[in-house]
Amino acid sequence: MRLVVYDDWRVGVLEPDGIHEVDSLIPGPWRRTPRAMNWLVEHFDGTRGRIERRAREVAPIGPDGVRLRAPVPVPMHLLAAPSNNARHIDEMRSGAGETGPPETPRELGFFLEAPGSICGAGDAIELPALPGRRFDHECELALVVGREARAVRAARALDHVFGYTCLLDITMRRSADRNEERSMRKSFATFTPVGPVLVTADEIPDPGQVGLRLWVDGELRQDASTRDLLVGVPELIEIASHVLPLQPGDLYTTGSPSGVGPIVPGNTVEAAMDHVGRMRLPVRARPW
Amino acid sequence: MRLVVYDDWRVGVLEPDGIHEVDSLIPGPWRRTPRAMNWLVEHFDGTRGRIERRAREVAPIGPDGVRLRAPVPVPMHLLAAPSNNARHIDEMRSGAGETGPPETPRELGFFLEAPGSICGAGDAIELPALPGRRFDHECELALVVGREARAVRAARALDHVFGYTCLLDITMRRSADRNEERSMRKSFATFTPVGPVLVTADEIPDPGQVGLRLWVDGELRQDASTRDLLVGVPELIEIASHVLPLQPGDLYTTGSPSGVGPIVPGNTVEAAMDHVGRMRLPVRARPW
Repeated sequence: MRLVVYDDWRVGVLEPDGIHEVDSLIPGPWRRTPRAMNWLVEHFDGTRGRIERRAREVAPIGPDGVRLRAPVPVPMHLLAAPSNNARHIDEMRSGAGETGPPETPRELGFFLEAPGSICGAGDAIELPALPGRRFDHECELALVVGREARAVRAARALDHVFGYTCLLDITMRRSADRNEERSMRKSFATFTPVGPVLVTADEIPDPGQVGLRLWVDGELRQDASTRDLLVGVPELIEIASHVLPLQPGDLYTTGSPSGVGPIVPGNTVEAAMDHVGRMRLPVRARPW
Repeated sequence: MRLVVYDDWRVGVLEPDGIHEVDSLIPGPWRRTPRAMNWLVEHFDGTRGRIERRAREVAPIGPDGVRLRAPVPVPMHLLAAPSNNARHIDEMRSGAGETGPPETPRELGFFLEAPGSICGAGDAIELPALPGRRFDHECELALVVGREARAVRAARALDHVFGYTCLLDITMRRSADRNEERSMRKSFATFTPVGPVLVTADEIPDPGQVGLRLWVDGELRQDASTRDLLVGVPELIEIASHVLPLQPGDLYTTGSPSGVGPIVPGNTVEAAMDHVGRMRLPVRARPW
């Protein structure tokens, strides 16, 4: 099933003929709020059949003319795997002159980004007008937690995955003279476009075989597969779930492949991921 | 006003004679859920008078015999100021042999911790049984955002503060041979005790003059004032609110003074903060 959130936080199922709204299945306090999908993820086991029936009953709209939101606009946690691709580690370290064996999420663990940095496929990436700073694109597979994951072993970890989506991890590069926090450099508002769709896990049997590509103004910059991840989805869940219980709706992004490079206002960033689809966002400046 | 959350996520006003429950003022979808205080913070301007009246009407209970929860159990963001006290920076750097001028939140920005690491004054700190690892206590003043703060200047920043509380930032020290993420080392479940009380801002006219102390097994380890912060509350809000809009209920912890030291299972940690009160938590081991 391919789930979307759009316009005034409506929830729908994306089919070849358009979006089929299923809002009527979401209880009042959550309906048409940014947390509607959190409710749906948590109650999906008992709701899936009704969602499928409701989606068949209603006429499709769009997707043209709708504003796509992030399919999980407000996760309780937005976790990220650092340095999870050998060639990306090399390209980041070459500037700093670092050598020695690379550290992966196995050694580094995870870091956190702000849910307030999330935007949707229908939004724009807004770069703060900070003179001399470089902002990079990173394109990543992200998983959405379905059932609470507490000290889960890798062999059982996929049981806790609700589904997958595409996440752009826009990053302000570290200043040469300041040791700025990674959490902050990735948490500017709009720096985490997510979407266009949240695909349930049954449609992606092997999250270690997902192709993804990113273009800037039509030029291919990243062309990779999640088979290049140094630490795969099951082990990432094992690592984080031993630190704290992962919650339904939590987003966990798996790390960028190589090809990371700068974006500037006026660019258009386009990303495509197997099973998930494409999103295309303009890059704008915002005053500082 | 001194607000508490307790037992099954009830909200109350703490007076000298005990806790006065005000749950009936919180709408059904939020009442007796971890997000009850988020609703109250967001709607406080129009609710304060009714809270005061309701608190006068109901008989007090406890505080003995109630389980105190964190007064904001699930902030959307849990932000933290790194390296915000000169003597604490010195004690952390002395082991690493670092010299040169210290970096403060002005240079470093902020980092994020997991809301899932939060616990209450009635809980226990649980240290994972990881051989050879050291876990430290840090005692800090934390502010709670009241009104959305978007690119706010320091001079107006206190207008966006709802109140203050005490936060223990339990930290797994970095491994000698691994560059583990700071976000993760502070995000283990129960590593962020908060409380016992959320004090509204009108009771703390100057957040730069708040005394705080921490004991381990009765031995005084930290004895400091927020006047020693290198970057004060108004400027911390300025820094983070330019990166992303801070939301009502967000917790922002201001950084630890010196005296940081290890805790082990079997210890009791006690913290006291002017205006906020005292909390006392046992330290336990949990299996890894």
